Amino acid sequence: MSLRPLVDVHTHVYLPRYASWLRSRSVAPKIMSTEGGERLLILENEPSGGRPVGPQYWDRQEKLRFMDLHGIGISFVSTANPWLDFLSAKDAHELALELNNDLEEYCSTGPSYLDSVLKRLYGLGLLPLVPGITIDAIVEAVNQIAAAPHLKGLIMGTKGIGKGLDDEALDPVWQAIEAAGLVVFLHPHYGVDSNAWGDKDNGHVLPLALGFPFETTTATARLILSGVFDRFPSLRILLAHSGGALPQLSSRLASCIDHDPVVASRLKHDARFYLGKLYFDAVAYGPEELGFVSEVVSRSKRFEAGSTVQGEADRREGSRRMLFGTDHPFFPPLTSTEKWKSVVENLEAIASVPGWGTSEKDGVRGGNALSLFGLHI
Amino acid sequence: MSLRPLVDVHTHVYLPRYASWLRSRSVAPKIMSTEGGERLLILENEPSGGRPVGPQYWDRQEKLRFMDLHGIGISFVSTANPWLDFLSAKDAHELALELNNDLEEYCSTGPSYLDSVLKRLYGLGLLPLVPGITIDAIVEAVNQIAAAPHLKGLIMGTKGIGKGLDDEALDPVWQAIEAAGLVVFLHPHYGVDSNAWGDKDNGHVLPLALGFPFETTTATARLILSGVFDRFPSLRILLAHSGGALPQLSSRLASCIDHDPVVASRLKHDARFYLGKLYFDAVAYGPEELGFVSEVVSRSKRFEAGSTVQGEADRREGSRRMLFGTDHPFFPPLTSTEKWKSVVENLEAIASVPGWGTSEKDGVRGGNALSLFGLHI
Repeated sequence: MSLRPLVDVHTHVYLPRYASWLRSRSVAPKIMSTEGGERLLILENEPSGGRPVGPQYWDRQEKLRFMDLHGIGISFVSTANPWLDFLSAKDAHELALELNNDLEEYCSTGPSYLDSVLKRLYGLGLLPLVPGITIDAIVEAVNQIAAAPHLKGLIMGTKGIGKGLDDEALDPVWQAIEAAGLVVFLHPHYGVDSNAWGDKDNGHVLPLALGFPFETTTATARLILSGVFDRFPSLRILLAHSGGALPQLSSRLASCIDHDPVVASRLKHDARFYLGKLYFDAVAYGPEELGFVSEVVSRSKRFEAGSTVQGEADRREGSRRMLFGTDHPFFPPLTSTEKWKSVVENLEAIASVPGWGTSEKDGVRGGNALSLFGLHI
Repeated sequence: MSLRPLVDVHTHVYLPRYASWLRSRSVAPKIMSTEGGERLLILENEPSGGRPVGPQYWDRQEKLRFMDLHGIGISFVSTANPWLDFLSAKDAHELALELNNDLEEYCSTGPSYLDSVLKRLYGLGLLPLVPGITIDAIVEAVNQIAAAPHLKGLIMGTKGIGKGLDDEALDPVWQAIEAAGLVVFLHPHYGVDSNAWGDKDNGHVLPLALGFPFETTTATARLILSGVFDRFPSLRILLAHSGGALPQLSSRLASCIDHDPVVASRLKHDARFYLGKLYFDAVAYGPEELGFVSEVVSRSKRFEAGSTVQGEADRREGSRRMLFGTDHPFFPPLTSTEKWKSVVENLEAIASVPGWGTSEKDGVRGGNALSLFGLHI
C-alpha cells in the first residue's frame, strides 16, 4: 500500500441486518440453509439453486482480508442487489435508514488508511426505491446519507419506484442527490426476460454476462432520453461494469434518435455527449474494452450542441472518468488461489491499455476515485 | 465508381412476391393501405403504427438509384426481417424456394459492374427456418442457394426452428452451409421483451438502438456456448450492426464462463477466440466503435487454447473481417437531401478510424467483402 492507494469502487456487502432479512424469507431473494452451507437465491428461477454465501458477504474482517490480499487500500462498499427492491414501502423506508446507519458505523469504526486522515472503508448508502413510497421518504434517505461522514454516495437499481429511472416523479430525488453532491452508483439486478437465454443450461453465464449489462445500458439510455442529464447537469452517475453495452451502442443510439424528430427535439445534445458526463467502473476484464470506453468518454465533447471540436478521441483524457472495481464478493476463485482471477484480470487490463500512461493508470487505479468522492490524502 | 468498388453487405429488399404476402395479412407482419400511403407493421405492438413503406423496398431501380447516389458499386441484397418466421412450415418451404429463385433473377438480370465480369447485385438467400419444418427442407434450400450463381450466402434470424440457433438439431444445416462455403448473415428481428423499454413513448429508438443489438449479441453468445464454432470451424458468419454489444461484452462473457467449470469444459477456447472467426459489418455509426471491433477481432489470437501470442491488438489486421453496409432502405433521410445521413455517417466513420491506413479503409469499404464472397474483378 502506498499513498497512491488502489481504490475499489465496486465492492458489495450484505450487512448482518440485511442477511437476517434474507434468512427470514421463503421466496427469493432469500438465504437458505443447505447441507453444504448457506446458499443465496437472488432470483426465483435462478439456475443451480443459487450460489454459496458466507462471511465474505457480511464480515468486515473478510472484506479487509480480501483488500489486503489484493493491495486494495480503500473500498467504497455498497449493498449488493437486490437492495430493498422486494420490500413493502414501510419496510424499505425503515430498513434503508437502519442500513445506512449500519454502513456508516461499518466504515467509521473500521481501520484508517495508513497514517492518513482517510479510512479504509467508505460506503454507498441505500434509498427506499420501491412502489408506493413517498418521494419525501426517499429524499429523507438522501439527506441522511449526505449527513453521514463516511457515506459518499448511494447505490441504485434500475426500477425506481416501479416505472424505471426515467420517471419524472423522481426529479426531486435527482435534485436532492445533485444538491448533496452524492455519487449514484447505478447497478443492474433484473437483466432481461429470461426467455432470451433459451433452453440450454449455461449456468449463470448469460444472465450475468449479458443480462446485467443490457439492463444497465437500457436504464442509462432511458435516463438520457428522459432529459435527466439536461435537467440535472451536475448529477454524477457511476455505471457498473463499464456501462455495459452503452459505449458500443452509443453511436447507434444517437443515429436512431436523430431519425426520430420528436425524440430528438427533447434533448439538448447528441446522445453521445451525455456519456462524457458519466463515470464508468473499470470492471470489463479486458484492456481493449477499457481503452474503448475512455475513447467514448473523450469523444463526448465533439457531441455537445454547437461544438466545433474535431479530431481523434484522447484515451488519456477519457480515462479520468474510469475507476477500478472488483465486484467482490462475487466471482470468487474456483480454487483457493492467492489472488482472485477476476481481480487480477481487471488490474492487468488497466495496466495494459494502449494509450494510457502511468498517470492515467494510477488515476484509474485510485486517483480518479478519490477525486470523484472528494477525498484528499 | 472504380475498380475498387464500394460494396454494401447490409442492404435489404422485400421482393414483390414477399410484399404481396405482407399485403394479404391481417396481423403483423403486414403492409397496410392508409391515406398517407402504404405502411409496414413489423411487430404487432410497434409504436407510431409502423413506418412508411414504398418502392425503395421492392423496386430494383430504386436500389440501383440509391447505390448510384452513394457511389456503391456492388450490393449483397438480403430479404429484410422478419423473413419467413411467421409462416407455416409448408408456406415457408415453398416461399423460400420461390424467393431464392426471385432473388437470383433480381441479381442475374441486373446490370454489370462497369466492364467487369461482376454484377452490381448479388443476393443472400432465405432458409425456411420455422417450427415444424424438416431439416431436409432446410438443407434443400441451402443447396438451392449454393447452386444459384448470384446467391453468395443467406440471411438468418435468431429463432432457428423455434429453439434458437444453439439447437443441436441444426447441426446438419451448419454442416451443409459450411460445406457449400456460403456466408451466413445473422440479423436481429425480435429484440428483447418490450417491458424493458418502459412507459415513455420514445418511438422506435430503444428497440432499434438497443433491442436489435442485444438480440444479435445473445444469439452469437449462445452459438459460441453451444460449441457450433468448435464443430464447424470453417463456418463464416457475418454479424449485423458490428456484432451488437458482443465485442464490448466479450471479456465479461469469457470471465463468466471461466467461473463456471461445467460450461467452460464444453469449449475448446476462451470465448474471445471465437470473435476472431466472425465477420462484422461496419454499421456502427462511429469510428471509435469500428476501431474497437477491429481490436477485438485481432486480439482473438491471444485466446486460442495454448496460444503464446501477447501484445497489443492490431487494428489493421482486425479490420480485414469488417465490411461496409448501409441498412438500406431503413433509416431514410428525414428530408430529401442528396445523400442519406445514415450512410454518410458510416462512410465517415470508416474514413476516420485511428490506426487504419488507406489499405484497411479500402478493405472495409469493399475489398474484404469481395474476398469473403469469393468475387474477383
